[in-house]
Amino acid sequence: MPLNADPNAPAKLSMKDIESAADRLKNWNRWGESDHVGTLNYTTADDIISAAGLVRKGRVISLAINLDNNGPQGGKTKFPPVGRFNPVHTMLRTGTDAYSGVLDKRGIRSADDLVLLPLQAATHWDGLGHIFYGNNMWNGYDCREVSSFGAAKCGIEHTKEKMVGRGVLLDIARHLGVDWLDDGFAITSEMLDECAKAQGVEVRKGDYLLIRTGHMEAKWEAGSWDGYPGGDAPGLAFDTLDWLQEKQVAAVATDTWGVEVRPNETTDANQPWHWICIPIMGLTMGEIFKLDELAKDCAQDKTYDFLFVAPTLPITGAVGSPINPLAIR
Amino acid sequence: MPLNADPNAPAKLSMKDIESAADRLKNWNRWGESDHVGTLNYTTADDIISAAGLVRKGRVISLAINLDNNGPQGGKTKFPPVGRFNPVHTMLRTGTDAYSGVLDKRGIRSADDLVLLPLQAATHWDGLGHIFYGNNMWNGYDCREVSSFGAAKCGIEHTKEKMVGRGVLLDIARHLGVDWLDDGFAITSEMLDECAKAQGVEVRKGDYLLIRTGHMEAKWEAGSWDGYPGGDAPGLAFDTLDWLQEKQVAAVATDTWGVEVRPNETTDANQPWHWICIPIMGLTMGEIFKLDELAKDCAQDKTYDFLFVAPTLPITGAVGSPINPLAIR
Amino acid sequence: MPLNADPNAPAKLSMKDIESAADRLKNWNRWGESDHVGTLNYTTADDIISAAGLVRKGRVISLAINLDNNGPQGGKTKFPPVGRFNPVHTMLRTGTDAYSGVLDKRGIRSADDLVLLPLQAATHWDGLGHIFYGNNMWNGYDCREVSSFGAAKCGIEHTKEKMVGRGVLLDIARHLGVDWLDDGFAITSEMLDECAKAQGVEVRKGDYLLIRTGHMEAKWEAGSWDGYPGGDAPGLAFDTLDWLQEKQVAAVATDTWGVEVRPNETTDANQPWHWICIPIMGLTMGEIFKLDELAKDCAQDKTYDFLFVAPTLPITGAVGSPINPLAIR
Amino acid sequence: MPLNADPNAPAKLSMKDIESAADRLKNWNRWGESDHVGTLNYTTADDIISAAGLVRKGRVISLAINLDNNGPQGGKTKFPPVGRFNPVHTMLRTGTDAYSGVLDKRGIRSADDLVLLPLQAATHWDGLGHIFYGNNMWNGYDCREVSSFGAAKCGIEHTKEKMVGRGVLLDIARHLGVDWLDDGFAITSEMLDECAKAQGVEVRKGDYLLIRTGHMEAKWEAGSWDGYPGGDAPGLAFDTLDWLQEKQVAAVATDTWGVEVRPNETTDANQPWHWICIPIMGLTMGEIFKLDELAKDCAQDKTYDFLFVAPTLPITGAVGSPINPLAIR
Repeated sequence: MPLNADPNAPAKLSMKDIESAADRLKNWNRWGESDHVGTLNYTTADDIISAAGLVRKGRVISLAINLDNNGPQGGKTKFPPVGRFNPVHTMLRTGTDAYSGVLDKRGIRSADDLVLLPLQAATHWDGLGHIFYGNNMWNGYDCREVSSFGAAKCGIEHTKEKMVGRGVLLDIARHLGVDWLDDGFAITSEMLDECAKAQGVEVRKGDYLLIRTGHMEAKWEAGSWDGYPGGDAPGLAFDTLDWLQEKQVAAVATDTWGVEVRPNETTDANQPWHWICIPIMGLTMGEIFKLDELAKDCAQDKTYDFLFVAPTLPITGAVGSPINPLAIR
Repeated sequence: MPLNADPNAPAKLSMKDIESAADRLKNWNRWGESDHVGTLNYTTADDIISAAGLVRKGRVISLAINLDNNGPQGGKTKFPPVGRFNPVHTMLRTGTDAYSGVLDKRGIRSADDLVLLPLQAATHWDGLGHIFYGNNMWNGYDCREVSSFGAAKCGIEHTKEKMVGRGVLLDIARHLGVDWLDDGFAITSEMLDECAKAQGVEVRKGDYLLIRTGHMEAKWEAGSWDGYPGGDAPGLAFDTLDWLQEKQVAAVATDTWGVEVRPNETTDANQPWHWICIPIMGLTMGEIFKLDELAKDCAQDKTYDFLFVAPTLPITGAVGSPINPLAIR
Repeated sequence: MPLNADPNAPAKLSMKDIESAADRLKNWNRWGESDHVGTLNYTTADDIISAAGLVRKGRVISLAINLDNNGPQGGKTKFPPVGRFNPVHTMLRTGTDAYSGVLDKRGIRSADDLVLLPLQAATHWDGLGHIFYGNNMWNGYDCREVSSFGAAKCGIEHTKEKMVGRGVLLDIARHLGVDWLDDGFAITSEMLDECAKAQGVEVRKGDYLLIRTGHMEAKWEAGSWDGYPGGDAPGLAFDTLDWLQEKQVAAVATDTWGVEVRPNETTDANQPWHWICIPIMGLTMGEIFKLDELAKDCAQDKTYDFLFVAPTLPITGAVGSPINPLAIR
Repeated sequence: MPLNADPNAPAKLSMKDIESAADRLKNWNRWGESDHVGTLNYTTADDIISAAGLVRKGRVISLAINLDNNGPQGGKTKFPPVGRFNPVHTMLRTGTDAYSGVLDKRGIRSADDLVLLPLQAATHWDGLGHIFYGNNMWNGYDCREVSSFGAAKCGIEHTKEKMVGRGVLLDIARHLGVDWLDDGFAITSEMLDECAKAQGVEVRKGDYLLIRTGHMEAKWEAGSWDGYPGGDAPGLAFDTLDWLQEKQVAAVATDTWGVEVRPNETTDANQPWHWICIPIMGLTMGEIFKLDELAKDCAQDKTYDFLFVAPTLPITGAVGSPINPLAIR
């Protein structure tokens, strides 16, 4: 039984609040004038060594949904169209070609294939070129650096040796005793602290933070992705931006389409949390993470940290990347 | 200065030798009648725990080339066309749209993108649906399981929780004191053993074995990928199949287009080593790995093993996957 | 008000009937052993000269639906998946890039674009490589001529100077006094003759025959393409194959997804009319033609023939082509 | 033997000349404030009727090159990259699938296919959204109307019932007694007049004007497209803009990559003729037209006009369209 949204919800955000957050949380130039990766800088070599020490039972858990025509982009949505579609996979040569003998003149029977892939279609990282604040992108770069030629600043290829560190799961749904949080349920900083405390885990500088709402399981239960892409969903409250800034996490990801709570806490902006997270704070976010199996495994051994490895595909100038994030426990 | 090809090259292979290898090295049913991942099964949970222990200095090295129009598919080739092309990256929304104000009615300024990606175009795993032996694929499955609908058996999605383990680099070029091996240079089992011994590293069951020829550096030096895709190259001799079978490695990868030596050791077949490796042994192979940085780092600290994580994108029914393999040291 | 399906429907077809039709209607070798275009051969130079004479008022009517994300491939279907999706159009450079000044270093402000286009997604010709009868395609060629490398026989490029001739519209729906025919309504040879007679038009050798069911208007009225792709529909009865053979038309097209009536007249085969039409008779068919405007114009001036020009895109080895067919009146 | 470029070439153009032409040739609002098709408006119904009367021998000649991997985008170029590549054609189902029996559960043996197609890659129309003058596009619309969402003004779909009329070929190369014009050869208004006079043909209002340089044949002779895309080429001189304006042609096309002469007549702008032709005059242009066969046929019967039909694919919001233009004689 899903939990009802908080009846004591905070007063609506205004554009002033967003602007104030932009002033308060701005990390521009924190890592130099030519930085491309923002908070991914928080993770140190020592953090990686420590994280490797969290591999206790040798189990690898994938946090990716499969890339195929059953993906969330087929779900109905009221969000203004963004041009994403489910991945299209086609073959360039096949075993049926082989069986038919048409490959034999080549001296080898082989199959190849091709994918047409919107980078934000399934489990993915949003790079720092994904969201703009006014005419600026991360680090104060001019937003025109991201043109039809791709991202001349903050292209995802700059992260190709990042995305390794200590992963921490905060399983908010399980902590609150529900299968999944309701649409519109706003996860606050306080809740994050309480959940971490209850789980006996500490969120530290340089961590890759995964937050489970159960929203994906709700869609599976419904047998349809309708409403998942751009629809109402549980997610992070605007106030968590300060918490994330304080914690100095490397990146944050959830099992929803867009991390933050929807309907948004304001009608002055669409996705106000995004406005700050990426261009102002330089905080990479992950979306459409499949967290059910990891959550079960963590609950079973009451251990919520692990080695996390989620390499981006280094697509030059890309503003995101499809990924297969791994929790190695 | 490149080394000349071995003047004492073994007599040419015949189709009989290939057939004999197929009989000798067949692993079908070794992991049950419904296996999809072959030698990836060799890696155990304990192996993964041990491999995590190899993270000694917290450095992450990417083994991927960037995915863009400068990739190897632009190189000239005499190989019969396989339909691969360099990745095409296009934008779905941009910062120039943002600057122009056309996104503001959406309430958020964001960019998205798209990639058209032949799965074998750049750094990739060849899955077990990639090569057929006669009318069979890995584990004896009928090759018609790989049709225009994709791979109904051995789709790459089955590997989504694999590709984690101990990585070992055998830097043959450096071991032989050259910048790169010559085209046509065949790396034999004996050379692999000698190199391992010289490097002070042991290849073990369940390892991810990376073999450096320096061929990619040769192309960079030439300023052109001409001849890289499907052209002459140094690579593994046919006799290494027995060695790999004996060592029980999980997977093997090189810095060349096709792992094995070219011109091939026979004219009876194209890529004879492939005929056995994938469909008969169930051995996953990696191609177009960028090994220069890893090789330098290994040479510097004289340590040739590390934690290796190279997750596939779980594209349902795919016969391969683009990857960003990471050596975590 | 739609008409009910014929209560006196003929007894169900059996596989024997299909085989018998294959024997009876086989045009293999009629135009030589190396023919690629089948009944398109019927149209002579004189036919084209005469057809040009049908341009009486200088009006051009397009018979294409627009290529975009609102196309029929978004409709729900129970047909086994064929991998078609609505066309995806993306920009390679834009006016917003221009406005942003990022193009000025190029010395010209220009926009380009790209389409990802399943050839059968919208208004299209089905080429003679589209359907097989057993192991044969048109003219008795081996079906393996159409492999992952494309169609080595009957590729659509062979038709690049065809698709010009006399067009004739048979507006069955209007003839029967309904806005559209019901799903499952089978148009028989007799009905075609009656409609032609009532319209005062004769179907002749070498004609391009367009048959209107009103099915597309029914979907517009419903506000959804659900059921259009691969769903129930009015269409040609199996017995029209003999009629088309006798009339010696160059090609036939309708405003439905698949020309023939659905549910099909048999459960022994899917699309039995297709089995004969393309591979046995060599008759090119057009699908998803937008016939509403043409029908109105023909009804108004009571003239049902016109110059018809519907050039294929000469995509080498393709089994079909998207088109913008024009009726020039 | 190619002709040398005119030794009496006019003095270089300056930006002032371009601006002056923009003032002089501006057709904005000539066809109303909401026009999308510009000079295509010149062709009247009577023109179409007359053009149909030019079909004298019933021969159809295609002016398209085939769409495949042998296209001009593979040629070397020094032009700043525009992201065009040769069309990629892949199969969605094949005859080898059929032969292999994997389609039989569907009850029909059929093949489908897919194309990845940059709209400007081969024979195509440039729509009125293709080029901008300052911050304006055709008719004075704001260039931001062409964003990543496509062209909200002047999308190619607006031309779906255009591109039919009288075609006229001016075969400049043949007129000058050469196989092809030299790179850098500028075709002037005077030459167009002389050629028309020599050919005994008059260019009239509403015509579709095709101008042959022989440049494509030069590339065939060389056995390579190198230098074709964006390289030096014969083509229209800047002064022909006034001539075209006076003649009131509907559209103009050539057998080169970019219609106008290259090197351009100025270094102040790239493609100065384009700056005026599309955004200022609203004149649609066609590129990469294959004119060799048409030219032979015209020379043979000394008749240089014909019915011309070159329908666009109505891709919503596109700035161009691949085409198979037909000369019907």
